[in-house]
This record gives sequence, structure tokens and C-alpha cells, in this order.
Amino acid sequence: IVISTRVRLARNVRGFAFLSRAEAETRRDIADTVSAAVRRAPLLRDFVHIDVEQLDELDRALLVERHLISRQHAEGAGARRLAFDPTEAAAIMINEEDHLRIQVMRSGLQVEEAWRQIDAIDDALEEHLDYEFHPQFGYLTACPTNVGTGIRVSVMLHLPALRLTNELEKVGQAARDMKLAVRGLHGEGTEALGDFFQVSNQITLGRSEVELIDDFRTSVIPRIVEYELAAREALLRTRPLALDDKIWRAVGALRSARLMSSNEAMQYLSHVRMGLHTGRLSVVDLQTLNELFLQIQPAHLQKLHGERLSGEQRSIERAAFIRTRLSSN
Amino acid sequence: IVISTRVRLARNVRGFAFLSRAEAETRRDIADTVSAAVRRAPLLRDFVHIDVEQLDELDRALLVERHLISRQHAEGAGARRLAFDPTEAAAIMINEEDHLRIQVMRSGLQVEEAWRQIDAIDDALEEHLDYEFHPQFGYLTACPTNVGTGIRVSVMLHLPALRLTNELEKVGQAARDMKLAVRGLHGEGTEALGDFFQVSNQITLGRSEVELIDDFRTSVIPRIVEYELAAREALLRTRPLALDDKIWRAVGALRSARLMSSNEAMQYLSHVRMGLHTGRLSVVDLQTLNELFLQIQPAHLQKLHGERLSGEQRSIERAAFIRTRLSSN
Repeated sequence: IVISTRVRLARNVRGFAFLSRAEAETRRDIADTVSAAVRRAPLLRDFVHIDVEQLDELDRALLVERHLISRQHAEGAGARRLAFDPTEAAAIMINEEDHLRIQVMRSGLQVEEAWRQIDAIDDALEEHLDYEFHPQFGYLTACPTNVGTGIRVSVMLHLPALRLTNELEKVGQAARDMKLAVRGLHGEGTEALGDFFQVSNQITLGRSEVELIDDFRTSVIPRIVEYELAAREALLRTRPLALDDKIWRAVGALRSARLMSSNEAMQYLSHVRMGLHTGRLSVVDLQTLNELFLQIQPAHLQKLHGERLSGEQRSIERAAFIRTRLSSN
Repeated sequence: IVISTRVRLARNVRGFAFLSRAEAETRRDIADTVSAAVRRAPLLRDFVHIDVEQLDELDRALLVERHLISRQHAEGAGARRLAFDPTEAAAIMINEEDHLRIQVMRSGLQVEEAWRQIDAIDDALEEHLDYEFHPQFGYLTACPTNVGTGIRVSVMLHLPALRLTNELEKVGQAARDMKLAVRGLHGEGTEALGDFFQVSNQITLGRSEVELIDDFRTSVIPRIVEYELAAREALLRTRPLALDDKIWRAVGALRSARLMSSNEAMQYLSHVRMGLHTGRLSVVDLQTLNELFLQIQPAHLQKLHGERLSGEQRSIERAAFIRTRLSSN
């Protein structure tokens, strides 16, 4: 039910303007300064360095789909970079909205572990960078909503049963009780695709990192997980065939379609995922399914295919790819 | 493309009131008189006689689904009967709207053959019955729209490609040009289910049976068939994958669903039928498919199951039945 945990920190380097007010040359100086710090930190010596400015559109889209950079970073202008751990568990966006956006991703609910890792990366960088820090307010950031700890904790949840039973409002309520926000798969302002929801904090001021992480770990997320489990049990108890119908129709469509959009594929894969987790289905293993979620996305599909594809071509290739991976024999 | 041809004649027996003005006893006398005539006619000696009044609701629904009686006849009150040829190709409803409604059903486009058979049945009955006939107007009927020849010719067409290409208006136009009506599967006032359409005449006065049959046989129906073939060719030429997508998704849904309404099943079976006829599909033979069209209907399903079923139970049994018949191995 808990797909992944992400923690990110917003940081800016003292002595440089915030990016909204930075000239092209300043931007480049910032990028060079941060890149140099990453290279010097022993903890980050395996990090891969990417000049996002030099990438073509498809490669940038690929990084977005892998959650290594934000859409804003992909679509931005001027000197901007990415440094990431080869396992893709940790990444540093350079010159996104702030000079640094450090993130750590973990599968499942691992808020504390993610926090410990990102805290270590933050410390390692701070040995080579002088952060903008105000004794009263904390870390200063481009957008006031990040001032303070500069931390954002996001937990991605898969809640198909709550959607089927029309109980998503419970999730909204649980989040609001702790002043957290609920969003769709690709961050702010997007709709929930394939029943994936992201719970994240909105407040970075007046609440310590440890308190925030504790809210996620011991309160909000366990409560939402309980709701989803209860909804699954209720479906299994009262309408097992309605559940099976959803799950098997999803399998049927994925194995049969000749044209499929990524949104539709996400929704069907979501139902298959629920089928695996409720034990109603075993036609596919979880790893194959997780790979499919990633690979059916437009940029991944084109990389896999080795060339640019129009929307209709992607729809054809996506359907064919899914059929191959989910074929019954 | 042409599923079936149906011809029916409306007749009333001289000396009895029309049914709208007939007392219960008169109704019974009419039924007895007509039944006796059917029994006496050598041509009709194999006919099965059914007292529709005595049937329970399920059996009447079954006869409707087999197109042996109309809904009106099933839901009517008082003495009313059915006599039909064991092959179900010919049937006589006694005391539906008129004293007699004789019908002949043939598969494919066989208007002339159906006319010849029904004309013979009509003659055979007339040797034992004195029909209401007016030298100027022709046969007199309960509803003025049937006065004259009392004939209705209906041809059932399967037009999935014209629906997919949004060209059904062409069918409407072809029909209107010859003063014919286009209706859904179960006669007047119903929507087209599973892309089945019924073309029938509206005029029974001032046009001989032979002229009318000629319109169907040589003009209207061949024109509509040509439209459908052209639409199928266009789909195959310009959007073969869109066609395959429809066809295979239908197969996928039929093989996977755990709950399915009869309308949804009809629509999917219709796409499978198109798949067979365009040669894009061979996972099922036409006979199995035609049986499915009949057997997924509510009354048939309950007969098959041996007991009354609620709507949800039917939905479960229907899905299970279809899965068994269309299983891949």
C-alpha cells in the first residue's frame, strides 16, 4: 500500500542571489560551486553528474518519469544540473527552484531511514558549502513555503480499494488533521493516476524535522494504510466478485488492447496490483508489474523503442509491450 | 451483415370484434376458432400449440427472447396463444393486437423465400377462416397502420463498422428514401443493442406485397450492406489497429469479466462478430457466437441455470457462462 517514501531538502548557497533574481552567469557560477561540492564530498563520490541543460527533451522526460528531476527542472532554462547516486535512491537537483534540492527515495514506508540518509548527505555537502541560514527562521529558500527546515516529506500510497468504495475523503481528512496535503502521482496540481496518491507536508516552519517524520511514521500513514486495508477487506467480504471483476477486466484489457494510453494503462495496472496484494491474482509477479508502471511512460517507451514516436505510435507500442509482458504463456 | 429476415401478416376473423372491443369470452372464442383452423390445416400439422395465458413470466420472456412472440403478447391479458413450427421459422400469435399475427423468420436476406412461405401459410389458414377483408382497403386490422396488405417486412442488420465510423445516418437516409423505418433489436421504440438494426416498412396501403418485397430485396438492403462493407474496408485500410483494438478488447472483456450485463455482453459479442466477419479473429466460431447472443439473455440464462436469478446473479452467471464458452483452451 505504501509504495515509496521521499524526503527532500531545499538549500541555497550563501553569497549568491536566489535563482529568480540570478543572471545567466550567476546561475552558472552557482551550478559550478554546487557541482564542485558534490564532487569533493567523499560520501557522494559515486554520484553521476548530468548537465540537464544539454539533454534533449526525451532524456529530460525520462528523468522526470524516473522521479530523478521535477517537471519544472526538465522544462526550465539556463544552467541546471543533476547529480544522483547510481541506485537512484538519492539525487541532487542543482538550480531547480533553489540552488539545491536534495532528495532521497526509499521503497515502502521508510521515513526515518530516508531522513537519516538525507541528513548525512546534507552534512556532507555543508562541509563544502555555506548555506543561507537565518538564526531565527532557519534555512532560507526561494519560495517562503519552504523557509525553515526546507524539508518536504512525501509518501506515495496506492489506494485502489478506497477509490472503489468512494472513501478517499477519509484520506483527505487524515491528512488535513496533520496539516498535510494529498496529491496525485506527479507532484502538485496533478490528478491521481492509477489510484496513486502522495501525502506530503505543507509546513516547514515551527516544526522540527524529527517531529514531522514522527507524524508520518507513527500517525498519518499507518492510519491511511488501515483505511485501505479495511476497504479491501470490506470488498472481499461483501463484493468479492465486484473486486475480481475489476481485477480480471484489467488483466483482460491489458492482454488484449491494441492501442492504450498511459493513463488507461496505469489504471489497469493499478487494479492488477490490487489483485496481487489481495491474493486474488497471480498471473504476474510484482517486479514485472512495477517495471511496467515505469516502462509504459512515454519517454521510457521511446527509449525502449529506440526512436521518437507520435502519440498514436506510443499507444500501439505500449499496448504491444504490455501484451508481451503479460502474455499468459 | 444481414442477420435475418422476418415477414409478418396481420389478420382478423370476420364475425368477431377487434380485440380492443372484445369481451373475455369473445377473446376465448376467437382463440379457439383460430387454434382449430391451425390444427385443421395440413400444412401446419406439425405446429406446436402453446397457451401463452398459462405460461409463467419466465417462459413468456423466453419466447420473447427467441422472437416467437412480442413483448406485448407476453405482457398482455386474457386468452392468447402461440402456434409455431418446431424449427421456429414460422409462428402464429393468436390474440396479440390482431386475431392473428403470422410470422416467418429466415436467416440472412431471404425476403422472397419468407414471403412465399408466409403466403402459403396464409392461404392454408384462409381455407378454414373467413378473414375481415374490404374490397377497397384490403385486410382490416386493429391498428389503421396495418390496414391493406397487413404485411410487415423486417430485416435485421449488423452494422458495427457504420457505428464505429459514425455513418449510421446513411442507413437512416437509405431507409427514409423508401419510406422504411430503422429500429433497434427488439422492435419498436428500443435502442440499437450490439449494433443490430431492424429495417421495416411503415406503409401497408397502396403498395402490393410483391412491390414491397422487391424494394427490400433489390434496393434498400443491398445499399445498406454496401455501406457497411465500405465502412469495414475503410477501417481495415486506414485504422486496422483501431479495429483490432475494438475486437480484441471485446474478447478480453468477455473472457475476463466476473459481472456482465446483457447489454454490455451484446455490444462485445457484436465486436467479436465483426472480428470473425472481417477475418481479424478466429478464436470462436460463428455458431458458438450466435448461440451466445441468444443464451446470454435474461430468460435463457435462467432457464439454463434452472432457477430464478436476481439481476446481480444473472450478471455473475452470464459472465461465467461466457468465460466458459470463450475460454482460450
